[in-house]
Amino acid sequence: MFTNQLALDASAAIRLIETTLAPGADVPLRDAMLYAVQGGKGLRAFLVREGARLHGVGDLAGHAAAAIEAVHAYSLVHDDLPAMDDDDLRRGQPTVHRKWDEATAILTGDALQSLAFELICEPGSGVSDAARANLALTLAQAAGARGMVLGQALDIAAETGPPLDLDAITTLQAGKTGALITWSACAGPRIAGDDISALRAYGDALGLAFQIADDLLDATGDAATVGKAVGKDADAGKATFVSLLGLDGARARAHDLVENACDALTDYGSSADTLKEAARFVIARDK
Amino acid sequence: MFTNQLALDASAAIRLIETTLAPGADVPLRDAMLYAVQGGKGLRAFLVREGARLHGVGDLAGHAAAAIEAVHAYSLVHDDLPAMDDDDLRRGQPTVHRKWDEATAILTGDALQSLAFELICEPGSGVSDAARANLALTLAQAAGARGMVLGQALDIAAETGPPLDLDAITTLQAGKTGALITWSACAGPRIAGDDISALRAYGDALGLAFQIADDLLDATGDAATVGKAVGKDADAGKATFVSLLGLDGARARAHDLVENACDALTDYGSSADTLKEAARFVIARDK
Repeated sequence: MFTNQLALDASAAIRLIETTLAPGADVPLRDAMLYAVQGGKGLRAFLVREGARLHGVGDLAGHAAAAIEAVHAYSLVHDDLPAMDDDDLRRGQPTVHRKWDEATAILTGDALQSLAFELICEPGSGVSDAARANLALTLAQAAGARGMVLGQALDIAAETGPPLDLDAITTLQAGKTGALITWSACAGPRIAGDDISALRAYGDALGLAFQIADDLLDATGDAATVGKAVGKDADAGKATFVSLLGLDGARARAHDLVENACDALTDYGSSADTLKEAARFVIARDK
Repeated sequence: MFTNQLALDASAAIRLIETTLAPGADVPLRDAMLYAVQGGKGLRAFLVREGARLHGVGDLAGHAAAAIEAVHAYSLVHDDLPAMDDDDLRRGQPTVHRKWDEATAILTGDALQSLAFELICEPGSGVSDAARANLALTLAQAAGARGMVLGQALDIAAETGPPLDLDAITTLQAGKTGALITWSACAGPRIAGDDISALRAYGDALGLAFQIADDLLDATGDAATVGKAVGKDADAGKATFVSLLGLDGARARAHDLVENACDALTDYGSSADTLKEAARFVIARDK
């Protein structure tokens, strides 16, 4: 569902990288940035586009869609570093620090974060001044020290601390995965200057369902299909939704959350069917 | 000159960190962010404030001043990492990865970059929607892959490649140090919606003078006074303005650049005297 949208979703980021950075420089920064933003599922960009379509601003969503994929890509490049999760494989390919080196990976992530704010704030996006400033503000809040970065810090701390309980894992994941997913769902109404509450409820439930599905994939998936190492959580003795709820319990919880996510969209009627399908896909996916 | 402005300059960043991040969490992120943004010279924030004062918007400059110090702090935390410049000492204190660990340093830098965009885009700053979006756009461009991050990537590549010539070093430093300094000088007219050209010329010249002064400090300074390791460039066999121009040549070039910087401010008359003094201080400083 998302994959055929990918070329579209990443296009503004790719175009900005390609047009503003000189090729053939003595540093691999440009190549590494292009490498990092490609090959993902494009879920976050898809949510931006669909939320925007529901609010009549689908044609203004390209920059925000590309921006959220740039932030997501930056977070993966940094999370994969040896000092963090130490992963060799991402989206079926060597991670940036394995293909190039650690310094390149740090700088690539840093530059992708900047790129996201550049994309969002570009006047050429056609989005109003107020909405661009609001999108940048809320993206910074979602990505930063009380959102995604906090989630990753809690995740790393959990590796050496006592196992987390369900509340603590829920808080961790609300930051690590949930904040960007909720931001993506809300970008459309923010561009339109509309109320975000329905899409926020959808995004919050979807984000948590997405993370439970990720834990299920880590517990039961196959590395070749998933495109990254699996079984790492159990090997590390980390508490996850699966270790706390069991396989069946985790599946049931993810299912309930998807129903909650769909219920939040009731007022949009059938025009929200694609977002409902997306929510069901998120817990049915195999990568 | 700058140091007595410091409490003011960093205050918006410190206040935002203190009020939005819960103390006593299980992770050192909040403490590390506060640690990283304090103790600097505050040059960039000072430039923001003075440029804003010249354009009649001095009372609106606090958020932009704090934001640029947050970006600068993020860049130092990442540049000091073992995979980058591998420094143990910064502003006379252990670097973030030495005081905590590498994962904390990576995440602290990431969160400080987000914080900068949050500060800039805060509606509470009193800055117009258009100016907030423009400040965020131009900060992202200055900080990213054709600005500061490119400069750092070129700097790291230079460690293993052939020695750079004067043009290549000038390009490197225009990104690594110059882009943020020029952004700082131009923030005031951007907030006011005025022409930035005079302050851009001032910032470009000042940024290069600043870097030449840094090379001179590395060649001739004392680690205890400077607050970080010195003599690293010569030890590493790196080309610098000092190795290419000699001590006297580098001093003369810095002096000429400061004159250029001051000349660019002619139209402001005596109200720009503080910025002129600052330029002269930059090449006279001992840390």
